[in-house]
Amino acid sequence: MELESFMAEYKEKVEEELRKFFTSKKNEIKHELLRRAVETIEEYTLRGGKRIRALLMIIGYRMYGGEGDEIIKAAASLELVQSYFLIHDDIMDESELRRGKKTVHKIYEEEHLHNGYPGNPQRFGENVAIIAGDLANVYAFEILSDTNFPHDRKDRVMKELERIMKYTGYGQLIDVYSSMLSHFSEEDLLLLHEYKTANYTIYGPLALGAILAGRNPEELKDFAIPIGIAFQLQDDILGLFGDEKKIGKPVTSDLAEGKKTLLIIKALENCNDAEREKIMNALGNPAVTIEQLNDVRDIVEKTGSLDYSRNLAAKLVEEGKRALANLDIPSKEYREILEKMADYIIKRTM
Amino acid sequence: MELESFMAEYKEKVEEELRKFFTSKKNEIKHELLRRAVETIEEYTLRGGKRIRALLMIIGYRMYGGEGDEIIKAAASLELVQSYFLIHDDIMDESELRRGKKTVHKIYEEEHLHNGYPGNPQRFGENVAIIAGDLANVYAFEILSDTNFPHDRKDRVMKELERIMKYTGYGQLIDVYSSMLSHFSEEDLLLLHEYKTANYTIYGPLALGAILAGRNPEELKDFAIPIGIAFQLQDDILGLFGDEKKIGKPVTSDLAEGKKTLLIIKALENCNDAEREKIMNALGNPAVTIEQLNDVRDIVEKTGSLDYSRNLAAKLVEEGKRALANLDIPSKEYREILEKMADYIIKRTM
Repeated sequence: MELESFMAEYKEKVEEELRKFFTSKKNEIKHELLRRAVETIEEYTLRGGKRIRALLMIIGYRMYGGEGDEIIKAAASLELVQSYFLIHDDIMDESELRRGKKTVHKIYEEEHLHNGYPGNPQRFGENVAIIAGDLANVYAFEILSDTNFPHDRKDRVMKELERIMKYTGYGQLIDVYSSMLSHFSEEDLLLLHEYKTANYTIYGPLALGAILAGRNPEELKDFAIPIGIAFQLQDDILGLFGDEKKIGKPVTSDLAEGKKTLLIIKALENCNDAEREKIMNALGNPAVTIEQLNDVRDIVEKTGSLDYSRNLAAKLVEEGKRALANLDIPSKEYREILEKMADYIIKRTM
Repeated sequence: MELESFMAEYKEKVEEELRKFFTSKKNEIKHELLRRAVETIEEYTLRGGKRIRALLMIIGYRMYGGEGDEIIKAAASLELVQSYFLIHDDIMDESELRRGKKTVHKIYEEEHLHNGYPGNPQRFGENVAIIAGDLANVYAFEILSDTNFPHDRKDRVMKELERIMKYTGYGQLIDVYSSMLSHFSEEDLLLLHEYKTANYTIYGPLALGAILAGRNPEELKDFAIPIGIAFQLQDDILGLFGDEKKIGKPVTSDLAEGKKTLLIIKALENCNDAEREKIMNALGNPAVTIEQLNDVRDIVEKTGSLDYSRNLAAKLVEEGKRALANLDIPSKEYREILEKMADYIIKRTM
């Protein structure tokens, strides 16, 4: 099977499950206010995205011999988890747009302004968005626990989802601190990537699928964790050196956000005082210019920091692929899909 | 058994389970930042409270013949749910104190100020508190799914916890809207009380316990929903007419918050224009005076609104007790505890 046709087919199936789920939620409630909130979460969830996590969960299931379509419903849970994280993340970052449309807190802030409600529009928008995120969270558990897998597998898969969400929360917390702390280290950063990317985006989804196929997922870690960290390192390289059109966000945005990537951490370790000042003036500066960006790029290259990140990513990819070669995966077809997916994930950003 | 000794004994046991749980969480993570966040959630959870929800879950289990102490661990999950709701609720209400100590977002706002972190201290405090609430949420699921009840019961109990959290979220959403909408009706309000109080505080906990004892909890609704709504009506009466010392908050606070209680809704329906103006000037006014409070009290009494709420609460208590009398509860001892608990809940606020 080609990766493209697998991705297209199952993306559509996952989205169909999401639509069915939201229809049932809308039928479950009568109050107009609640209905609108559910519609907002639905629209936000179905705005787009490659559904990488859901697809990896399906691969994790199929490659261990899992059959039938109940896995699609189970995999849809990860897209609800994603909405939950993103809705809360948008509040934290005060983002106005997500996938080119208004974030949930902005939608409700504008409702407040438009209807002339009493009090503070931003507060109202954030309050509704906190609740909307919380609802998406419980929806994720609900759709997963509504599947008809055997009770013992469901028990284990629920625990795994809890673990994933917990570690992602830990990663999110370290992330919030990363731009606060002047002593944020390479070690801190790699832990953040392990929690927030490798665990949440790669290992977790595969593990959930493997568990539902009746398999202990532990051995997948040796493949998924290095690949996940490599993906994040690559994403950060593209965030600083990429082409604006390809990465879908301003090339200055990682700098403006004050993102402490490995590129920045290593450059700061090895630059001189004048260069350090240039980096610090650009980092977390919402008005950072293209000229400043180019200066930072030069410093990151000159200090060897770009090579350091690239080499580490390449080493991790190598490590992950070697582990994958040693895995006992019954389905030859889905082993290949996973290999292609790994290449796809590493080569481009989501 | 006396209610007091039951409450004292099991409150201590539930808190012991919570302490054990938090110790295991702290051992699970190495990073200092995460450890401090877990300690904050622990301290917040153990600040106090009567543990009414956990106790009701234990009663729901024991009264249907459930034995052993695993139920205590399961019941501790509701206190983590409570922390999750309260941490997010504190953000939404911009509360500085909870049980006389700093709210989570305030603790982190002050850390930001104290350490001179870059950016906005309030934003940082709220961001960490959103994540801390999210962690308490996943902890609640984790402690429940770590219990050793049979797989099929656990499957059902997880679904019930999801349902409770979903409906509480719906209630919370209606609550956020209640002070925004000029046309907020008695029907809206009773739906809010059903979702947010009756479901979350009374029916849900009993249902979880009943399920773990192998029982279908549906029949408990006829008892628990009316009792839960009556409790909220009573709470609102105390909030406007109570004694500051007994209710543990300023007597003006419900008015200042703009809380649209049934007392206010009914008074607005039946008052004249001058009285309406007095109510509207007091409602949602952070600087509301005792004189204004007394005016509102007079109007609520004169319009018959106080009697209306009292009568409705009495009718609901009657209805709930009649339903309880008809329930098939194997344990005579715990039926009595439940009856006493119902009286206790109705007679005082938590």
